[in-house]
Amino acid sequence: MLHSILARLDKVMKFEQASAHCDIPCKIYDPSTAQIGVLTMIRMVDLIQELEAKQPLSLSEQATLSRLVTQKEQHGVEVKEAIRVIWGDYFKQPQLEAFPQIHQLTHNIMLQASKAKQHVDRDMTVQLLALVNEFADIFWQTKGVTTFTATCPYPPAEEVVYPKLD
Amino acid sequence: MLHSILARLDKVMKFEQASAHCDIPCKIYDPSTAQIGVLTMIRMVDLIQELEAKQPLSLSEQATLSRLVTQKEQHGVEVKEAIRVIWGDYFKQPQLEAFPQIHQLTHNIMLQASKAKQHVDRDMTVQLLALVNEFADIFWQTKGVTTFTATCPYPPAEEVVYPKLD
Amino acid sequence: MLHSILARLDKVMKFEQASAHCDIPCKIYDPSTAQIGVLTMIRMVDLIQELEAKQPLSLSEQATLSRLVTQKEQHGVEVKEAIRVIWGDYFKQPQLEAFPQIHQLTHNIMLQASKAKQHVDRDMTVQLLALVNEFADIFWQTKGVTTFTATCPYPPAEEVVYPKLD
Amino acid sequence: MLHSILARLDKVMKFEQASAHCDIPCKIYDPSTAQIGVLTMIRMVDLIQELEAKQPLSLSEQATLSRLVTQKEQHGVEVKEAIRVIWGDYFKQPQLEAFPQIHQLTHNIMLQASKAKQHVDRDMTVQLLALVNEFADIFWQTKGVTTFTATCPYPPAEEVVYPKLD
Amino acid sequence: MLHSILARLDKVMKFEQASAHCDIPCKIYDPSTAQIGVLTMIRMVDLIQELEAKQPLSLSEQATLSRLVTQKEQHGVEVKEAIRVIWGDYFKQPQLEAFPQIHQLTHNIMLQASKAKQHVDRDMTVQLLALVNEFADIFWQTKGVTTFTATCPYPPAEEVVYPKLD
Amino acid sequence: MLHSILARLDKVMKFEQASAHCDIPCKIYDPSTAQIGVLTMIRMVDLIQELEAKQPLSLSEQATLSRLVTQKEQHGVEVKEAIRVIWGDYFKQPQLEAFPQIHQLTHNIMLQASKAKQHVDRDMTVQLLALVNEFADIFWQTKGVTTFTATCPYPPAEEVVYPKLD
Repeated sequence: MLHSILARLDKVMKFEQASAHCDIPCKIYDPSTAQIGVLTMIRMVDLIQELEAKQPLSLSEQATLSRLVTQKEQHGVEVKEAIRVIWGDYFKQPQLEAFPQIHQLTHNIMLQASKAKQHVDRDMTVQLLALVNEFADIFWQTKGVTTFTATCPYPPAEEVVYPKLD
Repeated sequence: MLHSILARLDKVMKFEQASAHCDIPCKIYDPSTAQIGVLTMIRMVDLIQELEAKQPLSLSEQATLSRLVTQKEQHGVEVKEAIRVIWGDYFKQPQLEAFPQIHQLTHNIMLQASKAKQHVDRDMTVQLLALVNEFADIFWQTKGVTTFTATCPYPPAEEVVYPKLD
Repeated sequence: MLHSILARLDKVMKFEQASAHCDIPCKIYDPSTAQIGVLTMIRMVDLIQELEAKQPLSLSEQATLSRLVTQKEQHGVEVKEAIRVIWGDYFKQPQLEAFPQIHQLTHNIMLQASKAKQHVDRDMTVQLLALVNEFADIFWQTKGVTTFTATCPYPPAEEVVYPKLD
Repeated sequence: MLHSILARLDKVMKFEQASAHCDIPCKIYDPSTAQIGVLTMIRMVDLIQELEAKQPLSLSEQATLSRLVTQKEQHGVEVKEAIRVIWGDYFKQPQLEAFPQIHQLTHNIMLQASKAKQHVDRDMTVQLLALVNEFADIFWQTKGVTTFTATCPYPPAEEVVYPKLD
Repeated sequence: MLHSILARLDKVMKFEQASAHCDIPCKIYDPSTAQIGVLTMIRMVDLIQELEAKQPLSLSEQATLSRLVTQKEQHGVEVKEAIRVIWGDYFKQPQLEAFPQIHQLTHNIMLQASKAKQHVDRDMTVQLLALVNEFADIFWQTKGVTTFTATCPYPPAEEVVYPKLD
Repeated sequence: MLHSILARLDKVMKFEQASAHCDIPCKIYDPSTAQIGVLTMIRMVDLIQELEAKQPLSLSEQATLSRLVTQKEQHGVEVKEAIRVIWGDYFKQPQLEAFPQIHQLTHNIMLQASKAKQHVDRDMTVQLLALVNEFADIFWQTKGVTTFTATCPYPPAEEVVYPKLD
């Protein structure tokens, strides 16, 4: 999905050097917050679907459903927020030129996160994870950091894009 | 409902001129926040009642119900907060003298907002809108701004009091 | 700035009719939240600059400065959030086709809001208002609602784009 | 300040019995939240004034000032919120009839809390405590609970109205 | 449960005198926040169980259930937060030496609060109150304040540990 | 600092198998939230100290100071919260037996985070990072995940403990 990365990356790198001095109050950006958010949404879907077999739900199970839905909802908001911050605060002219698809990708994440919030649907939520992973991959490229994909070390044991730091 | 407005308005205006210089940290007050809050509550009631026809609800529909209730609840809190801020921060002696009913009106809004939160009842929530519109009308009068009533340009398409600005 | 609006508007309107039935949980979108947020930021800049003449500040004035900065900051976050919600939740394929500049405009708002947060600079903050007004204007067009520009009925008495509802 | 309490209290008590059955979702109201909030504001004023002697402040002391102001501010908001909830949710017709001054007292608390937020002024903040204590006293009377006044067991060691429970 | 209190208390008192001068930004700690939080959880359990008799729930009753669960959940978070703040900010070396069980007690409160959040179970929630009361008792001892146990003056009318202030 | 890890790890692993089935609503725990929080605190200290050279500060620089302090403060709260959640929700009997020092370590993190919040002191904040890294290391051990230490890929370029996932 990311053709001619190397050429673009050069572009980013050069601009970054040029603009480094005006980067004050540069914050620490890390897409892991968004990724953990989506993983939690998937986990909530899994736990909600475990309740499916128990229909009709007891009052106590309805209470559990309500708690799971609230968690899924809140993490959906966190995903949107975390992506908005990186896109809106960190991506500037050089990064936009290297990755012109980032506007559309970010918007797709917003729409997909809405879908994942509005439904109890594992596929929709896993598709959101794929988009957020793609975003994370681009982000780390703009930083000149290689990435790898691995299963996250906790449920729901989905594939996550991580920066290669060792 | 607002008899002898003009006389009162004069009173307000004079006091405002007199106290204008001590108005530092005067904030920007706008009842539209409260009005949008009630409109959202009405919309949530409408969406909840659409689920009525689908009983018994699937797990996914129960999740939707839980989301709608949470939104209704949160907007109920926002309505109370927005009204409390205008009443408690903006209304001072001159405004209170011109509109002595404002204490009781504000308290009625609080009680009605509680009712609208505790029930899924369109009439109750529309009554809350009427009270909040009355509050908005008084507020704009204290500012010397004429108001008009129009259907809001989105669902639930209810009547809203707006300031006449053009 | 908005050439060939009418043609585009037709396009939006048609798509909206087509997709109206699948609009469930459609929320109530209103750019006034973002606009009030920027107006508050401008007001805070004005109040901060009133302190400029008093340098060196007393402890009490430093406390006031700290309060004003916090308010400016929080409203900057609210502006970003309010715009992100409309852009990310409401703008879908038909609106994007009619207003393809919306991605870039939204991103510009994010960057400009960062600038307005990072500096105490009236011009920067007024430029943010211009961008948010442009966003509001496009939004109301997608709704088929005419707009007008008027001075807001409270400080900082800046020009704001409003929907024409009467 | 509380004349003919006993007569009024009877009135409240009777109405409470009458309306007890419709009290569903009755919450647990306790003015101690508001009282602790004001005490914290007073404490913050004391700590801010300790910095007064150190002028001009080092960067680190300016940072401390900023933290203290933020805490004072947030507790000011909490005070307003806590009082608004008891007044707006708990006080209904029988309580209002027994204590018709409660609207004005609540409004005075809002205005005084604004003053205490806007200034670094011990007297203003202690006056806020007096108003909140008066509110607490009335509240406990509507519950038929006797009160007593004691020094709070932590700084700022001010007089607080407590319910007599043993 | 609190053997050889007096000996320990002496220890605390001495250390407090010694360290009093470094107590700057000392906050105001009060376990009543945590206690009110648990009482509210118990009340929510009681209200949820009142719905038990009405099964199957109408849509409106399901909405009420959702609201009650959310309140129970939020107060569970508040309990954990309030206890964490006192334990993590206030308890230092002298208090830890006098009450070495405080780490385990605090951790037990966290686990029990999780249980009370995850279930609709009065016994579990009352056990949480017992632990929080034990924590409050220790806290007041470190302050040299005597405590007493009384029924709280509102529903759910459970036994609460209060400081003896008159 | 972590002697006889392997023996303890066995213990944890066995207990985890035994209790796995009752782990419903198990959440996704990840100490990276706490680690990113401390890194941000260090970064804020660095940016605050850049202002040191500019004394006396202009009004605009004082505003920047206020913003940096607020960020440092909020991330300090996030660190405490993130650690409290893992310690209080995830650590149960088997983990406590394998790592009996976790209570004291968690408490030390709370105290150190308070220090880092109360001062503008790089060393204090780096010491907090060391404690949080130690916590992260233990956490990943309880999960049976190897860790490594690397420089974080953004400012302040400090050493962070990461799980080895590839």
